[in-house]
Amino acid sequence: MMQNGIGRTVPGYVEGYGDIRLFTGAFQTLPNMLRRAPAVKMRTPSDSKLVGGLEEVFRRIPVKDGMTLSFHHHFRNGDGVLNLVLATAAKLGIKNLNIAVSSVFPVHAPLLEHIKNGVVTGLDTNYMSGPVAEAVSHGILSRPVIMRTHGGRARAIECGQLKIDVAFIAAPAADDYGNINGTMGPTACGSLGYAIPDAEYADHVVAVTDYLCEYPLSPASISQTRVDYVVAVDVIGDPAGIVSGSTKVTKDPVGLKIAQTAAQVIKAAGLIKEGLSFQTGAGGASLATAHYIGKMMEQQGVTASFAMGGITSYLVDMLNRGLLRKITDVQGFDLEAVRSIGTNPNHIEVSAGVYANPFNSGCIVNKLDTVFLGATEIDTDFNVNVTTGSNGVIMGGSGGHSDAAAGAKLTLIVANLLRGRLPTVRDKVLTATTPGETVDVLVTERGIAVNPLRTDLAEKLLAAGLLVEDIHDLKRKAEKMAGVPKPIKTRERIVAVVEYRDGTIIDVVRQVND
Amino acid sequence: MMQNGIGRTVPGYVEGYGDIRLFTGAFQTLPNMLRRAPAVKMRTPSDSKLVGGLEEVFRRIPVKDGMTLSFHHHFRNGDGVLNLVLATAAKLGIKNLNIAVSSVFPVHAPLLEHIKNGVVTGLDTNYMSGPVAEAVSHGILSRPVIMRTHGGRARAIECGQLKIDVAFIAAPAADDYGNINGTMGPTACGSLGYAIPDAEYADHVVAVTDYLCEYPLSPASISQTRVDYVVAVDVIGDPAGIVSGSTKVTKDPVGLKIAQTAAQVIKAAGLIKEGLSFQTGAGGASLATAHYIGKMMEQQGVTASFAMGGITSYLVDMLNRGLLRKITDVQGFDLEAVRSIGTNPNHIEVSAGVYANPFNSGCIVNKLDTVFLGATEIDTDFNVNVTTGSNGVIMGGSGGHSDAAAGAKLTLIVANLLRGRLPTVRDKVLTATTPGETVDVLVTERGIAVNPLRTDLAEKLLAAGLLVEDIHDLKRKAEKMAGVPKPIKTRERIVAVVEYRDGTIIDVVRQVND
Repeated sequence: MMQNGIGRTVPGYVEGYGDIRLFTGAFQTLPNMLRRAPAVKMRTPSDSKLVGGLEEVFRRIPVKDGMTLSFHHHFRNGDGVLNLVLATAAKLGIKNLNIAVSSVFPVHAPLLEHIKNGVVTGLDTNYMSGPVAEAVSHGILSRPVIMRTHGGRARAIECGQLKIDVAFIAAPAADDYGNINGTMGPTACGSLGYAIPDAEYADHVVAVTDYLCEYPLSPASISQTRVDYVVAVDVIGDPAGIVSGSTKVTKDPVGLKIAQTAAQVIKAAGLIKEGLSFQTGAGGASLATAHYIGKMMEQQGVTASFAMGGITSYLVDMLNRGLLRKITDVQGFDLEAVRSIGTNPNHIEVSAGVYANPFNSGCIVNKLDTVFLGATEIDTDFNVNVTTGSNGVIMGGSGGHSDAAAGAKLTLIVANLLRGRLPTVRDKVLTATTPGETVDVLVTERGIAVNPLRTDLAEKLLAAGLLVEDIHDLKRKAEKMAGVPKPIKTRERIVAVVEYRDGTIIDVVRQVND
Repeated sequence: MMQNGIGRTVPGYVEGYGDIRLFTGAFQTLPNMLRRAPAVKMRTPSDSKLVGGLEEVFRRIPVKDGMTLSFHHHFRNGDGVLNLVLATAAKLGIKNLNIAVSSVFPVHAPLLEHIKNGVVTGLDTNYMSGPVAEAVSHGILSRPVIMRTHGGRARAIECGQLKIDVAFIAAPAADDYGNINGTMGPTACGSLGYAIPDAEYADHVVAVTDYLCEYPLSPASISQTRVDYVVAVDVIGDPAGIVSGSTKVTKDPVGLKIAQTAAQVIKAAGLIKEGLSFQTGAGGASLATAHYIGKMMEQQGVTASFAMGGITSYLVDMLNRGLLRKITDVQGFDLEAVRSIGTNPNHIEVSAGVYANPFNSGCIVNKLDTVFLGATEIDTDFNVNVTTGSNGVIMGGSGGHSDAAAGAKLTLIVANLLRGRLPTVRDKVLTATTPGETVDVLVTERGIAVNPLRTDLAEKLLAAGLLVEDIHDLKRKAEKMAGVPKPIKTRERIVAVVEYRDGTIIDVVRQVND
């Protein structure tokens, strides 16, 4: 066992994962590799890419035992393609697949059966919730799940650590030669940002569509030059499932108070200014913060250069009212976002790599002024857990949390001081997702704490009349109300490794007791 | 000496180029390599990409003797960046540079001085005309020039045969983090299609701009994730120079007759139908053919799915009138094309790789129904020369000629039977640019010849009442009028190798006598 840069105890080697590279700091690990180089291909003018069905695709590639198949999660809890493809794999008797899906939702419950039957033995994802996450926490997989950030997944693909044999792209619109977009057709999902690295670096790329268009489809989020097969199916997903989880502004008065305070912190930091840029996290208080920022911007007569994040109707509304000049969109969180990206040229689709890959010539999060993110736990070193819940079971993951925190000049955590009657502030989070050095402020309904690394910021907040407390005091306040929580006892067995965006290991998740 | 698949005599090895891979047929050479993998990079949020000037960029990279610098030619005869960059190299005393520029124009005459001074010792291009082309033909360079096709250049970059150390991108609009497009700013040039592979695969990428925009610039033809430095200069080029060479419909009655006949051939082949796709070559008769095709489409009430090629006002007009549903644009040939691509969402920018790289999962030329191209010579095997003129001097090159010919279902050569009082049809072209197997029909003002490989086509033309002659008869007709031309005597020394789009050698160009 070793300790990494934030004092998390991790083994030097994890069976089913390999040697551990220790997290040493947000920008301490430098890239030292070439970009992944997939095999070069050729198609003659008479070749067709249209294939009769998924089984035929499996035979033509051919999909073999042990391969890594990848999927994107833009349909969130409405995704139909992962289940369709794995049903095909099961039918054809394929075993031992590794599934690289950008996020896992309750709709993916059929994965459990495929895991039990040996069709699937590995999982690689940035976020998971629902039955699969619970089963993983209880040890259903023999290999640990690799949990990455959204930018880290793009990095792992681009740098060759996550080698994808076949990328299956749920394609709301596709032409017969593989040009794809997400903004047209009956099951439009908006941005296809998370699928773009998969298409660019996989050995084989399959477009799975329910809306076959005339050639040449435009705009093309993914180009014909990277797509090998086009398969038409009845339906690729249910757009209604996109609006799932915490993609709505909170109506809870406590959440609104936190959001209002967060907006005051951002103002006090001097960031409500012409050309501001910000990202909203998922979660009601985070979305509400954007609302209050918008109000302040209106009062001050300033406009933002861009906003980023899972995109909601609230940001679209700010764009339409001229408060935002651009939206950069890696993922839509509701159907208003889907409509907007298809019609407004200032609502721009970006890939996961452009959004947040730390290993390229500069991603968008580097240009963020501020981001406001949620937390299930935060410790007195400001390390944040958004991976495991109060019972130790996986219920999320970084997604873009660590990426935006690292990139933004000012990172706020907005969270209730108590969560389900347990203190949010801890001596030590159960799972470290985002390192404290990238978190600047904690805003709760009962007080604000500033990371001691940011004395400049604390001074600004005090000057603006905001009360800043020591994070230990916030912890004591919470414990006074709810008592000191009992530490969660886990087993020794590692069920997931948490990769920081640069590919080092920031923490591991251990199996929970039944 | 060896003979390649079309009987051209080439050596097995060329000094300064290396071993020769013989051309064996348009689709006979299959890719057998991985994609080029440039080094992975990283930028921290506080890094700036803005650099004070070109000299500072040279020092920061640093640019060294022997490197390959790349440039794009969207400004055609109005390009300012290549000359600016090479003046910087000369000033800093750098020697032995290899220049990879997608095309060379008369405006690039300062290259001659840099060659004489040893600053530049290698050249890699798809087309050249003017003083540099003449000097090359007279042996100014000790290493042979590598002449590629537009698709072949993308292939060579993507597959690692053309390794670019530094790509200098003339950027009509750029933000401070390297997002680039060609459609905005005072020197807009339209599509940046030829620069996209350079940006994607070069070790270092520099945006040279005279229009610095607010972040994030959109649309972005080239992404911030691939750009390392942004340099502002006074002016990057003269858009008036874009309209140069043969980018206007001919007014010559002979040319118009040829164009009219070509349109009749296309109609007889059954291609004036709903969803037609076509490419126009440069050259007056080729552009006029598009005009007649448009008329036939109007008469028949059909619309084309897309048109491709260097884009002119004639195609833009067809798009605006609804005769074309889409334009796919790798390069604008006039300012109307520049305006259109910036405003019409059905006028789509495509990269050189998407346009014509034979080694990917399928480029656009594969989807062409027909293309009509020019020729300086064509031989009785239908091999076409667009590289050298009647005196043996280089005055062009394939550009997209060989690419479109290989991709289209029906390739027409439209040419006067005599060119400068010399027969266009020869027993053997001086330089083979495009192989005869990819050429279906020759249309001249005095007759039509069909490639014997296409008996199906000859039958269709005869059924439509068009007179089809043997190409040898057309040759005899020409020789009766102008006599049998004397063969051009060249020296032995090779001044250029002509790479077919797949990287094999289709021919070499030898030094001319003074």
